[in-house]
Amino acid sequence: MFVTRVLGIDPGLTRCGYAIVDGRGPSDVRAVSMGVIRTSTSDPLASRLATLRTEFTSLIAEFEPNAVAVEQVFFQVNVRTAMATGQASGLALAEAAIAGCEVIQYTPNQVKDAVAGSGGAGKEQVQKMVQTRLNLATMPRPADAADAAAVALTHLSMSPIGRHLRQAASR
Amino acid sequence: MFVTRVLGIDPGLTRCGYAIVDGRGPSDVRAVSMGVIRTSTSDPLASRLATLRTEFTSLIAEFEPNAVAVEQVFFQVNVRTAMATGQASGLALAEAAIAGCEVIQYTPNQVKDAVAGSGGAGKEQVQKMVQTRLNLATMPRPADAADAAAVALTHLSMSPIGRHLRQAASR
Repeated sequence: MFVTRVLGIDPGLTRCGYAIVDGRGPSDVRAVSMGVIRTSTSDPLASRLATLRTEFTSLIAEFEPNAVAVEQVFFQVNVRTAMATGQASGLALAEAAIAGCEVIQYTPNQVKDAVAGSGGAGKEQVQKMVQTRLNLATMPRPADAADAAAVALTHLSMSPIGRHLRQAASR
Repeated sequence: MFVTRVLGIDPGLTRCGYAIVDGRGPSDVRAVSMGVIRTSTSDPLASRLATLRTEFTSLIAEFEPNAVAVEQVFFQVNVRTAMATGQASGLALAEAAIAGCEVIQYTPNQVKDAVAGSGGAGKEQVQKMVQTRLNLATMPRPADAADAAAVALTHLSMSPIGRHLRQAASR
């Protein structure tokens, strides 16, 4: 059966979670790699963004995902953080499109709903579900990696038609 | 005398202005190339960001600037536009740093002040000064290209020490 390989991204400038998840269907999923890209707050913004960009390029070249799913960034209380997170997200979206991957964004509520069954689910509840669904012996640490896996699982939980509609809506 | 080549960027998702300006000093400046990268509002966000990213990479590879100066994005009334502009800006900052260029951001007021002598100068006043300082026969069109040239001129108007201090402050 066809395997869909998804690179999930929980965008962030200081900590950016990523997860490569293979899926043969909504319930047949397997974590291939999970981790966090870190950049130092003492480095200039441009250098930090450059680090993220080269890491995204490497991840996509190494794992050759079919799709890249990125958690959508909204304006939070801290607008400076929102802008930095949005810039990290933009780099991932651009590299994914350049590599020819399917690219899609999911809102935090879509992720919670798809993974934990409710848009109002707590962060720990989502992480616990990630552990269960990926059959991991321990809770993924740091949490950003688990959050990225949740975004990848969200994409895999969508039917191809559902994915197509969401992609059109995200334009 | 040493020539500083600056790539100025007026970031935007739909229209992104760029200008390559060579300077031998604050008053000895020359426009090498100016233009606008356009992306279609009907294309998916990821494709539009990918277009910008590849164009930035091409510009830097072709013109080999010493420095890339990017107008800093602030949160405007339209937060969606601010986010898209910030993402365009982030791509430019990342590509410039990857290429080993000096990278620096200037606020809109710094640009107005450096080019037109006042942080409260109007857009047309700045564009007119760009035309005068670059000795252009006609007003640069579209305005985004002139705005990018203004950012490049701002960088060239800074003393090396002034540049260094601003760069440290922009971290």
